[in-house]
Amino acid sequence: MSLAEQWRDEQTAYVAAVAGKLTDFLSSRQSVMSTISQDIDPLMGSISNLVTGGKRLRALMCYWGWRGAGGDAGAGEVVTAGSALELFQAAALIHDDIIDRSDMRRGGPSVHRRFIELHEAQGWALDSERFGHAAAILTGDLCLSFSEESFTEIGDRAASGSRARLIFNLMRAEVMAGQYLDILEEVAGPRRDRAGAVSRAQSIIRFKSAKYSTEHPLALGGALAGASDELLHGYSAFALPLGEAFQLRDDVLGVFGDPVTTGKPAGDDLREGKRTVLVAFALDQALPEESAFIDAKLGNPYLNDADVAEIRRIIIDCGALQATELLIQEFGQAAFEALDALPLEELPKTALRRLAEATVSRAS
Amino acid sequence: MSLAEQWRDEQTAYVAAVAGKLTDFLSSRQSVMSTISQDIDPLMGSISNLVTGGKRLRALMCYWGWRGAGGDAGAGEVVTAGSALELFQAAALIHDDIIDRSDMRRGGPSVHRRFIELHEAQGWALDSERFGHAAAILTGDLCLSFSEESFTEIGDRAASGSRARLIFNLMRAEVMAGQYLDILEEVAGPRRDRAGAVSRAQSIIRFKSAKYSTEHPLALGGALAGASDELLHGYSAFALPLGEAFQLRDDVLGVFGDPVTTGKPAGDDLREGKRTVLVAFALDQALPEESAFIDAKLGNPYLNDADVAEIRRIIIDCGALQATELLIQEFGQAAFEALDALPLEELPKTALRRLAEATVSRAS
Repeated sequence: MSLAEQWRDEQTAYVAAVAGKLTDFLSSRQSVMSTISQDIDPLMGSISNLVTGGKRLRALMCYWGWRGAGGDAGAGEVVTAGSALELFQAAALIHDDIIDRSDMRRGGPSVHRRFIELHEAQGWALDSERFGHAAAILTGDLCLSFSEESFTEIGDRAASGSRARLIFNLMRAEVMAGQYLDILEEVAGPRRDRAGAVSRAQSIIRFKSAKYSTEHPLALGGALAGASDELLHGYSAFALPLGEAFQLRDDVLGVFGDPVTTGKPAGDDLREGKRTVLVAFALDQALPEESAFIDAKLGNPYLNDADVAEIRRIIIDCGALQATELLIQEFGQAAFEALDALPLEELPKTALRRLAEATVSRAS
Repeated sequence: MSLAEQWRDEQTAYVAAVAGKLTDFLSSRQSVMSTISQDIDPLMGSISNLVTGGKRLRALMCYWGWRGAGGDAGAGEVVTAGSALELFQAAALIHDDIIDRSDMRRGGPSVHRRFIELHEAQGWALDSERFGHAAAILTGDLCLSFSEESFTEIGDRAASGSRARLIFNLMRAEVMAGQYLDILEEVAGPRRDRAGAVSRAQSIIRFKSAKYSTEHPLALGGALAGASDELLHGYSAFALPLGEAFQLRDDVLGVFGDPVTTGKPAGDDLREGKRTVLVAFALDQALPEESAFIDAKLGNPYLNDADVAEIRRIIIDCGALQATELLIQEFGQAAFEALDALPLEELPKTALRRLAEATVSRAS
């Protein structure tokens, strides 16, 4: 079997095992929930629906981190860890979509939107939006608890005081802190010094995304397999810039992405008022009246297509898009160089390279 | 030392130990958070503030459940468990206050309200309310994660697969399910059959409150100390009706409570549209035009004092208050009879009796 075949077979088997584990986990919880009331079904259905899709980026980082540190192919611990990461991501998305007022997720309605539609379809009383947000807060909380239940099921390797547990804890705290800094910048950014905006946006990226999406999942897999400090250090040198490139790509897609491939409306990040690195570059480099235009339009939920087109033009003309693409390239290069230096066997190294390539060049 | 003195000294020492544990726990997390950004301080401050106050009902149920099952006075495990329960309660309150749009908590502003006020005081951009809700969602998520971190620190007795872990997991899932049923009844209740309203309200009480506030914490303490199935069964027979009485008392206070002692505006439950057992009795027993009046007013956030007074009058005149007080008495009696039958030593039995008396007769 060629290396490419081995990579494909093993990765496919792992993704299928995580999907199976998630199905079993949720079906066991469903049987507990159904003893309470069938009215709980929409919460469980929303969670199932969310963990069915997605790129499984975090689970795959965890798997190849585990394999790179000598963990066995297809071992139960890393499947359970992957399932915990996917459940955590689902919980984060549910609350994130309420926070960002995003009505769409992966081409379908987001969870709060589902509950709003349920309310309207049933002709229930009082305010449908308020009900939808409340139900989605609770669904996210339930999913967050499930994530932790799943993580604990790893057993001894993730017991109290273990390195894996510390990484999982730090990952959760950092992503929540990073998300707060993100919404804080939306409201406080316009009042803070413009010169610091790019570095603030880079710090947000690091905590809300890079550490969470790539660095910690990779380290988690490594730690579960007993990786040395040195290997974990090398993992970070690869995964942190990779994650930064990943999020910068996300920011570009948030303004320039094709709704057909991203599953979200065009220019959604602008309506949400996200002060990304891309936007911070534009505010810094555009003409004063163009910066003022962006400042006035950011965070307006009713931004029309012409406004989005004008902001895109400014971002391109002032060089902000180019500067961001350059950063993506630099972070990507740093990641690939660090990967080359990692003392890994061929299979995990190849797998991480492919994962990194897909991450940096993605269109959705 | 008399039994009463022993009880007081031990309970005081435990409450102080839980407070100390919470302070140490949050200060260690604060030092992690401050490496990210000082902007995170308001999240940590809100959590600290919430876990400083409160009746410590859940922690105390856990402690006396532990002592009743033979656990040592002042052992670290039960202090850590109490701290995890208090952090979970804080997380639940933060999200609950967003869901119920409660601006006050224990006489001060609720967490989302604190962030709204921070936004306004700083003169930040965009919508202060939206920012406040988003920040409070994230603060609650962080607190939920902290609760689990604290629970895991118990160590072996709460390891994967342990009885204590199963109880903690079930407690979380059930309270979230119960809270969903609660908000569902607010919107779906008016369209569902009125004859079933009292039993639906009783089911909500069981899951969102009785199991969560008394049954599971008591069982958790017992399980940590290695209680037998029989003892845990006896604990439930006591704590479940106690918790039901506790929540029914809460419902009465939500309509008739004195704002000075409850720390919340008078009639707050009515503005929130809560379809409690008290309200369900009233809808069932009042004159048709009175029921219609309540139905029309429930969930109106701008309900005025005259409306609150009129609903109170209807609840009293139709016998709904009396019926609820009777239920409280019956549940209380069932709880005390079950307590008498428990094979406990004098100290934990006395302690649980005092805790139960305070719970059933409280005014805040």
